[in-house]
Amino acid sequence: MRDFLNNPDQFLRHLQAAGYTGVPPQTIARCPIWKGACVEHLTQLKERLTEVHNLAGASALLGWDQQVNMPPGGAIHRAAQLATLSKLHHELFTAEETGRLLEAAEAEAQGLPYDSDDASLLRVTRHDYDLATKLPTALVAELTRVTSLAHEAWAKARANDDYAAFKPWLKQILDLTLQAAGHLGYEDRIYDALIDQYEPGMKTAQVAALFDELKAAQIPLIQAIAAQRGRIDNSILKREYPEAAQEAFGRMVARQLGYDFERGRLDRAVHPFTTGFGSNDIRITTRYESRWLPGSLFGTIHESGHAMYEQGSAAAISGTPLEGGASLGIHESQSRLWENLVGRSRAFWMYFFPRLQAAFPAPLEGVDLDTFYRAINRVEPSLIRVEADEVTYNLHIIIRFEIENDLLEGRLSVDDAPEAWNAKYEGYLGVRPPTNREGILQDVHWSGGMIGYFPTYTLGNLMSVPFFDKAVAAHPAIPDEIARGEFGTLLGWLRDNIYRHGRKYQPAELYERVTGEKISAQPYVAYLRQKYGEIYDL
Amino acid sequence: MRDFLNNPDQFLRHLQAAGYTGVPPQTIARCPIWKGACVEHLTQLKERLTEVHNLAGASALLGWDQQVNMPPGGAIHRAAQLATLSKLHHELFTAEETGRLLEAAEAEAQGLPYDSDDASLLRVTRHDYDLATKLPTALVAELTRVTSLAHEAWAKARANDDYAAFKPWLKQILDLTLQAAGHLGYEDRIYDALIDQYEPGMKTAQVAALFDELKAAQIPLIQAIAAQRGRIDNSILKREYPEAAQEAFGRMVARQLGYDFERGRLDRAVHPFTTGFGSNDIRITTRYESRWLPGSLFGTIHESGHAMYEQGSAAAISGTPLEGGASLGIHESQSRLWENLVGRSRAFWMYFFPRLQAAFPAPLEGVDLDTFYRAINRVEPSLIRVEADEVTYNLHIIIRFEIENDLLEGRLSVDDAPEAWNAKYEGYLGVRPPTNREGILQDVHWSGGMIGYFPTYTLGNLMSVPFFDKAVAAHPAIPDEIARGEFGTLLGWLRDNIYRHGRKYQPAELYERVTGEKISAQPYVAYLRQKYGEIYDL
Repeated sequence: MRDFLNNPDQFLRHLQAAGYTGVPPQTIARCPIWKGACVEHLTQLKERLTEVHNLAGASALLGWDQQVNMPPGGAIHRAAQLATLSKLHHELFTAEETGRLLEAAEAEAQGLPYDSDDASLLRVTRHDYDLATKLPTALVAELTRVTSLAHEAWAKARANDDYAAFKPWLKQILDLTLQAAGHLGYEDRIYDALIDQYEPGMKTAQVAALFDELKAAQIPLIQAIAAQRGRIDNSILKREYPEAAQEAFGRMVARQLGYDFERGRLDRAVHPFTTGFGSNDIRITTRYESRWLPGSLFGTIHESGHAMYEQGSAAAISGTPLEGGASLGIHESQSRLWENLVGRSRAFWMYFFPRLQAAFPAPLEGVDLDTFYRAINRVEPSLIRVEADEVTYNLHIIIRFEIENDLLEGRLSVDDAPEAWNAKYEGYLGVRPPTNREGILQDVHWSGGMIGYFPTYTLGNLMSVPFFDKAVAAHPAIPDEIARGEFGTLLGWLRDNIYRHGRKYQPAELYERVTGEKISAQPYVAYLRQKYGEIYDL
Repeated sequence: MRDFLNNPDQFLRHLQAAGYTGVPPQTIARCPIWKGACVEHLTQLKERLTEVHNLAGASALLGWDQQVNMPPGGAIHRAAQLATLSKLHHELFTAEETGRLLEAAEAEAQGLPYDSDDASLLRVTRHDYDLATKLPTALVAELTRVTSLAHEAWAKARANDDYAAFKPWLKQILDLTLQAAGHLGYEDRIYDALIDQYEPGMKTAQVAALFDELKAAQIPLIQAIAAQRGRIDNSILKREYPEAAQEAFGRMVARQLGYDFERGRLDRAVHPFTTGFGSNDIRITTRYESRWLPGSLFGTIHESGHAMYEQGSAAAISGTPLEGGASLGIHESQSRLWENLVGRSRAFWMYFFPRLQAAFPAPLEGVDLDTFYRAINRVEPSLIRVEADEVTYNLHIIIRFEIENDLLEGRLSVDDAPEAWNAKYEGYLGVRPPTNREGILQDVHWSGGMIGYFPTYTLGNLMSVPFFDKAVAAHPAIPDEIARGEFGTLLGWLRDNIYRHGRKYQPAELYERVTGEKISAQPYVAYLRQKYGEIYDL
């Protein structure tokens, strides 16, 4: 205890203070050879990208700590540290030298197999680099400045139900977003430039067609359910479930699903999230409410899905910029697959319900499996996206997608946006927000400049069902295994077919490799009809 | 829970991935004016140093997480992230541009008051910069490579009690250290160049004189105590003290001393330490052993001392490279002041002992204050430095200081070092290590290249007493306040006179400002004689 600096990190830190910290200068390796050709630039590019990746990992840890551990006083320092890391990350990645090495490496790597790690790294880097360098520095600075102020303004406007106070910020963000889209470039729709940031390669027309198909099927389904709504009571989920027991149960479920606690951890956070600093250290968070069991339970399964995806990157790409997930949509397909297709299935609860009853004997006394299963799958059209059930959730997303496009393409003004929002809620979900706080002001995304982001949630839902079906087609025993609390076959198939590739393929490309088909709404619609047709006896 | 990225950091991270993260380009402010002169270079230097400081803070957080939270899998990624941060830190700080700005800023700032933050920043930066740039890159690389391997070799050699296996590494480290000292420069003793890294401005001759004085007084004191040793039994401290209650008690004590949990936190770690990421986020760690109460109790007080020091930097220097501690010695003076002069005093336990008894009724049943006070102050010459008591500790340090100098100045070979070590233990402490594992192989420092570091522990002890005496002279009520569990006056005085200055003054300079005297061994010797004379009835 007397050794203030007597441990390796303090030692490292101390060395830094004393200027002893230089890492050995990069030795110029003799030119590596691939198929007889020298790939020196590729090698240098990889070294540089690894540094960029390490900076991103360090930033992510600072962010995790901020949500999970940081004492209030640390905020001011943390903002400064993140700003420095962010600046260095941006400078290093967008430097002309990166572009030069990338171009030279692309030339060297002509003829590398498409699926190889190196060819994939070059494709992914080209996409990232173009995105990062197409925006003029002045526009990036202005976006940073405006969204930082707009975020404060939004939080206040939402608290006060004051859309008028947020409107000028929304207007400004839309203007800047239009400028950004112009620089990023698009052929068909403005939105193409935006969605590409979150779902590489995805086109607006394709999303619109999928969403129209989905909407046409979901609206009547929801109406039919709404007519029967009184049939399911979920008040058993609002009894007293002690938080400590919720945590123990959630931890047990996550472990059994296959989330690896040797390469991750579960903590509490106000806003649950998954983050990572390399595929061997992917952490999840959740929150507990003693009188709402599903919150932490399905939240933990959802985040475990995200985390198992990132933990599954192949060893060969671990620690490189290729580790992680292909897109937000593919990511969401995995969190939803585990949360909904597995975690809200009857088979899952055939195994876990007796264990849940043992963990919570008082609130679940006399409750049977069927009652519980129906309670956790209760459908009810509502106003708030983040509280929506599996069936209605997609309509929340479709409304946002339509409004974003109408705003960007000039069919809707920011003045008229709240009314358009409310009208769509009434038309699609049969509920009308009584306030803007419960309407157009509810989400953080626009204030942060994240226009084009929402569709990824529903794309994830659409992709989750064919992925799951494909796994079951390959291994028909999976449903029986789930009913026995065994998930190894399913996880193994997902790892082999999706997780191990990390960011190598664009989302639509990955989807087609895995399923052999184009993305369609039909499998998801069929799944909903089947599951909820049975639950609601339609 | 569905919002994988719906929080500010994930948002930031996502922006980074999308290339949106650029911080606004540094606007060239109109030249700031001081006393009619433009201080543009100073302003630019400060921006650059703040980035360097932020990188160090980020590294420290990665280190903290590694000790406290990181799952085992994360190690490989963490090493890569720390290497990247360390490289960027070194490059940014030692860049020619830093030197150019520093020189220009020094010229601009001629005539700034010595005590001003800006003049102090320039002095501290000059010292750091010279230290960091005097070593040739190739030597830094070789030191990094050799110490990294030597650390592994040392751990194995210690486990196997195999000095022969460590000897070639020690030899190599000594050779590299001699080269480093040559580059760093010294006038009198080789060791001057080394100790200056940890205790800026301190000279070997001064340390040697202090240590000789101390040794002459401590050896007979220890002999006198050893003759009486049987008189104190500390077995009550080895009873069963439940860990949860230890933690709650330690937390309560730390809070009451004045450690600010709004700007810090207490966690468990295998090797207790204090670390920080800005003066508003200074964290401490400890470890618990249920059958050894003093470990966590005094460990927590010790780390709280380090932490209160760093939390006390003036607001004006918070977040700048001037925050923190003046040197390792001054740091140790504060951890020891709180641990020993406060935490092991009779007055302290007059207040806390009844509370300790309430927290641990079973093991402390029937134990009285005096018995407890004597038990926690039991003196016994022993072999292991980190387990030594307040009185014998300094002799462990003096032995290391003497051996380091003998090795560097060629009076001792690495072959003969173990025997020299054992002979000194026998001569000074009356105990002879039966193995090298309990002798020369016990400490990590040399394997890490940290030669010149040990004296700071004892310098801290020596300075702690005059600092405390000075506080009591200014506020004679302090001892009575301690006996009432009140520490605000003492902490306030330490903040005003020491903590708020951060790194502005060199240690001897700070000491003289505070005490009006040169560092001497006498006050500390007088304190030991008085306290232990009474305890041991000498």
